[in-house]
Amino acid sequence: MDPGIADADRDGATDDDRGLYRAAGFGRPVPRGPRPAILVVDFSRGFTDPAVPTGAEMTDELAATRRLLDLGREKGVPAVFTTIAFDPAQLASLPWLHKAPGMAALVQGSPLVAVDQRLARRRDEPLIVKTGASAFFGTPLAAQLAAWRIDTVIVAGATTSGCVRASVVDAMQSGFNVLVPRDCVADRAAAPHDANLFDMQQKYADVIPLDEVLAYLGGLPAAAAPEGGRT
Amino acid sequence: MDPGIADADRDGATDDDRGLYRAAGFGRPVPRGPRPAILVVDFSRGFTDPAVPTGAEMTDELAATRRLLDLGREKGVPAVFTTIAFDPAQLASLPWLHKAPGMAALVQGSPLVAVDQRLARRRDEPLIVKTGASAFFGTPLAAQLAAWRIDTVIVAGATTSGCVRASVVDAMQSGFNVLVPRDCVADRAAAPHDANLFDMQQKYADVIPLDEVLAYLGGLPAAAAPEGGRT
Amino acid sequence: MDPGIADADRDGATDDDRGLYRAAGFGRPVPRGPRPAILVVDFSRGFTDPAVPTGAEMTDELAATRRLLDLGREKGVPAVFTTIAFDPAQLASLPWLHKAPGMAALVQGSPLVAVDQRLARRRDEPLIVKTGASAFFGTPLAAQLAAWRIDTVIVAGATTSGCVRASVVDAMQSGFNVLVPRDCVADRAAAPHDANLFDMQQKYADVIPLDEVLAYLGGLPAAAAPEGGRT
Amino acid sequence: MDPGIADADRDGATDDDRGLYRAAGFGRPVPRGPRPAILVVDFSRGFTDPAVPTGAEMTDELAATRRLLDLGREKGVPAVFTTIAFDPAQLASLPWLHKAPGMAALVQGSPLVAVDQRLARRRDEPLIVKTGASAFFGTPLAAQLAAWRIDTVIVAGATTSGCVRASVVDAMQSGFNVLVPRDCVADRAAAPHDANLFDMQQKYADVIPLDEVLAYLGGLPAAAAPEGGRT
Repeated sequence: MDPGIADADRDGATDDDRGLYRAAGFGRPVPRGPRPAILVVDFSRGFTDPAVPTGAEMTDELAATRRLLDLGREKGVPAVFTTIAFDPAQLASLPWLHKAPGMAALVQGSPLVAVDQRLARRRDEPLIVKTGASAFFGTPLAAQLAAWRIDTVIVAGATTSGCVRASVVDAMQSGFNVLVPRDCVADRAAAPHDANLFDMQQKYADVIPLDEVLAYLGGLPAAAAPEGGRT
Repeated sequence: MDPGIADADRDGATDDDRGLYRAAGFGRPVPRGPRPAILVVDFSRGFTDPAVPTGAEMTDELAATRRLLDLGREKGVPAVFTTIAFDPAQLASLPWLHKAPGMAALVQGSPLVAVDQRLARRRDEPLIVKTGASAFFGTPLAAQLAAWRIDTVIVAGATTSGCVRASVVDAMQSGFNVLVPRDCVADRAAAPHDANLFDMQQKYADVIPLDEVLAYLGGLPAAAAPEGGRT
Repeated sequence: MDPGIADADRDGATDDDRGLYRAAGFGRPVPRGPRPAILVVDFSRGFTDPAVPTGAEMTDELAATRRLLDLGREKGVPAVFTTIAFDPAQLASLPWLHKAPGMAALVQGSPLVAVDQRLARRRDEPLIVKTGASAFFGTPLAAQLAAWRIDTVIVAGATTSGCVRASVVDAMQSGFNVLVPRDCVADRAAAPHDANLFDMQQKYADVIPLDEVLAYLGGLPAAAAPEGGRT
Repeated sequence: MDPGIADADRDGATDDDRGLYRAAGFGRPVPRGPRPAILVVDFSRGFTDPAVPTGAEMTDELAATRRLLDLGREKGVPAVFTTIAFDPAQLASLPWLHKAPGMAALVQGSPLVAVDQRLARRRDEPLIVKTGASAFFGTPLAAQLAAWRIDTVIVAGATTSGCVRASVVDAMQSGFNVLVPRDCVADRAAAPHDANLFDMQQKYADVIPLDEVLAYLGGLPAAAAPEGGRT
């Protein structure tokens, strides 16, 4: 099933649009390599708790991401998490906090920056602290993925139209093939969620059902598991 | 006029969505500083020529950008252009070209990578060659803006839902306040264009009419013009 | 006094070498701008405590850096500190820890990663956590400096031949003029210290006495002090 | 043979220094992986032509690098070259050109920026254009190496104390194990050359004889050759 088509009734793209994109050479599938990693973007309480102003209801996407992580852990696929956490000394000067001052609640030490416990992050899964939208910007994430000799990055997290989108673009730019299991990315609003899935599927990543990602991971030999310090 | 509201009939966001974003602390205006620069993203023939598969009709947006550049030049505001141009030796390996093989036509030396002549790029306006979506990724653009002591980046170019969006996110992350004159950004399809203007206005930049940007530039003293080698 | 000449008896460079560098167009002075920042690299206990295997005696350099910071604080010059602190989940995979396993003691939460108390870091002075040699690599430091609208970076810290050298190169590459007060940088061994001062003075920064830096800061008007959120 | 020891009479380090570095956990060997790449830094006429002010006699190092490239090509090991080439519009503003104005001769289109013909660069070997010291700064090199799924970077080029040193530090920081064949790196002066080999061997890379690198490449199976688009 073509994921772009599947969204045809929601993402606002017309049949003419789809024809344009096809003619321009977008939307082709990316290779799935033998050494994937799972990147979980900003599933912290500041985004996953609906009682918080910047949060929303993400129970289903968290459960789907837990399924992804559980199979990955079984197969030895490395996982890495991100959270936004500002140094209080940065709050007054960062341009992002002029535009989106709601983000300023995400300060170091706040309970809002902790990774959602439903994902059961393990001690051998690094936590990348970031102060921008992308998991890669101003962080050592690309170097960590290169050090693990990763070829394919599976991106889950929140929000689809914000930090997930920015991280997917950077993962692709950083030299990796990117998969987005649509069940594992969440947003606070439907229209931006759908529109960004469309953009990502056309230009940067394969936006596919979780089951397709699980089948790919399930097909990996145990030996495909990257280990620290291997080479 | 609130630009988000102005698009309410086109970007798919509902009134409930707008309420959510307001409550989450998004969509505030960014400061306009005394040292702006103009960033023109990918207005090269590969995008501006409708006869090319990856191109589209962008006559109006080019004319609006020319107005922006002309006033900027008068005021001594530096401008920088980008173009996508791949080294032929990269074509087989880059993940972006798996997903979007249409981009592979943009090879070094092709007429498709030249900046559109209607913008009359001057010899003192650097051309940044890039191989990703963002004007900042894998380029010295952030360093150039820092060397010019820029505080505010005005982004024009194509496409709104692709390289403009990625460049706007990175400009904000790189420490700059960002303005997007909506008349100066173009796309090949309306729905992604509108959806990305909504995202950018809410989270990363002020998406405003060109006239508002021209008024800001017009109000700059001549002395605000950055000059090479000043400090 | 030319700082290169001052070191002539220690850095191993001959008069012929100096002639070569002069002819090649190296070693010119850099401008000092109106908006400096102070960057303090890795003055953490892992480096400043001589009882620690990776540490050395740095009492004098810490005292000199305290003088630099005190005047900067008086003048409103922003300061930013760095420390190396690895996530335990990274230890097995990072190439640096293959080459220099002694660095692996610098894990998050260890007393070794705390900034030396003799510098009295204030709450409004950001701490950048890094996992490489350069203060800029995989960190948001360049963005922070751009957000502060900095033009000149004054680099203190340890070690001269390691993280200071790497940070000085990146500060210059990131668009800033760089000053190194020689009294404020420390190393565990004299020969690499001297050799790296020579390289930096010739190619990347002005290596000068602290008194010259203090005179520059002392000459700044109070209004030159960058403030968060100014533009 | 330990390369640090081999240089003991030239790099200025004393026996006490060597003891300090050993105790601090430096100077261990890095792994050699199955997917190396060769990075040739700035062997352009601006550096390899002794008649040019920034150049020096590098005939032997070029010949050694040619041997390295020839075996790599036979084995399918990818090679990538760098050159410094400034856009004329950047010359007035870049801090590096304040400090080292001799570099400003390296403008786009000048014969000085062409890769030395003795290395016979092939069309399938990318040329990375840079405007800083490091091959990685402001370039897509790290992404290219990740796209090739590289684990080990072999660095040749000029100058040892400048762009080679900066590139070696960044290659390590970017997640790669680094080898420096000492016969393949050149400088205009002996003391900085030796001092930087010492630093690199202690902290960032294995500085080893070319023969040792050739033996490593010779032992690779033909299948180890990365190919574009493989994954």
